[in-house]
Amino acid sequence: MWQPPAMGSPVTHFPLEDLPTEEVDRQEAVYTGLADAVRSLLEATLTASPSALAASLPAVSAVTAALRVAQTDGPLGVRHNGRGRTWSWGNAVIGPRNATAPPLEVVRPAAGGPVTASVVLGPAHQDQPGVLHPGAAVKLLDHLMGVVAADGRRLTMTGTLRITHHRPTPLGAVSLAGWITGEEGSKVLVHAELADASGVVTVEAEGIFVVPRWAR
Amino acid sequence: MWQPPAMGSPVTHFPLEDLPTEEVDRQEAVYTGLADAVRSLLEATLTASPSALAASLPAVSAVTAALRVAQTDGPLGVRHNGRGRTWSWGNAVIGPRNATAPPLEVVRPAAGGPVTASVVLGPAHQDQPGVLHPGAAVKLLDHLMGVVAADGRRLTMTGTLRITHHRPTPLGAVSLAGWITGEEGSKVLVHAELADASGVVTVEAEGIFVVPRWAR
Repeated sequence: MWQPPAMGSPVTHFPLEDLPTEEVDRQEAVYTGLADAVRSLLEATLTASPSALAASLPAVSAVTAALRVAQTDGPLGVRHNGRGRTWSWGNAVIGPRNATAPPLEVVRPAAGGPVTASVVLGPAHQDQPGVLHPGAAVKLLDHLMGVVAADGRRLTMTGTLRITHHRPTPLGAVSLAGWITGEEGSKVLVHAELADASGVVTVEAEGIFVVPRWAR
Repeated sequence: MWQPPAMGSPVTHFPLEDLPTEEVDRQEAVYTGLADAVRSLLEATLTASPSALAASLPAVSAVTAALRVAQTDGPLGVRHNGRGRTWSWGNAVIGPRNATAPPLEVVRPAAGGPVTASVVLGPAHQDQPGVLHPGAAVKLLDHLMGVVAADGRRLTMTGTLRITHHRPTPLGAVSLAGWITGEEGSKVLVHAELADASGVVTVEAEGIFVVPRWAR
């Protein structure tokens, strides 16, 4: 049974791990392969007919048992190798090793302009059939806005968000964009939007992100 | 490759399915068993050591292939049997068949009082190690608030949400509660909060939910 760990010092959340970038890339590819396979499996379970279930349950449990034999402490959280490569494999939104994450790939432009992401969302992210769960849309926006606020140079935390749902978002390809609209002391103001496959903005968000006192 | 379905008429989202309640319960137990096994598997993949991965990938893919042989159209979305039993097996927040959903079990009290839910959230829902992703917290709140607004008697959609994050939420047991604070024409005002295992409220939300024109 999984037990929640004690909440560590914030400083432990961005540790240095002395791995060459090529080795980080290699490990990430291996881990992502298995997580992608689990993503496909969980999508298949959504609509599997009862006749196929009986044989599958012991097979799934056997794989889990085999994986449980050789477990590590992670790495979870954000790591960096001091050479410009960061990774966050377990994260619920961007973690390639986390099969509940789409995962979102957030792109920070080198020379200003909006931070963006695009991803194809399947039935695991649904509310009504064919429709993205509105809470799932906000989960993605919250994460993107955190990246916008941090701006690659500071640690920020979500303070308040104001979300406006204009219309339901069809499942399938969606895109996100966000940018800083202002800064006031330790507060960073961020605007972000999520658009459907035809580019129609379905959800908008205004956020106030805060640089925590211990990180100033 | 999964393709997004065309967005159907809203009326198709709450269809009647003529199944005895006992049969719904029986099918749900079967489906939930497999989804729970996939939940355990995806948690094990989060921290599996590289040595265990190589053998697991073909096994996971084989199960997926077996499930793909016998697929159904769902049932996704909300169904009801006309006898007081509703089910929403594929939903991204409450769907027991959806391994990305915790799943949240929302409890509507028979005689007034807050709508509540409690759930244990493991590392699949993490941001930093041991900390619930703030977007994942909002995803759960959004869903609970929709149940509050609908009040078991009408169809509502999320309009706007205002979220205040007071502090990080440790992973583990969390509880949610929500209630209606006002109604203005087709708008329903809802307050909700999410508390950690010690009962400390970590996230608060104010929402305006709307009864769509076609459902009035």
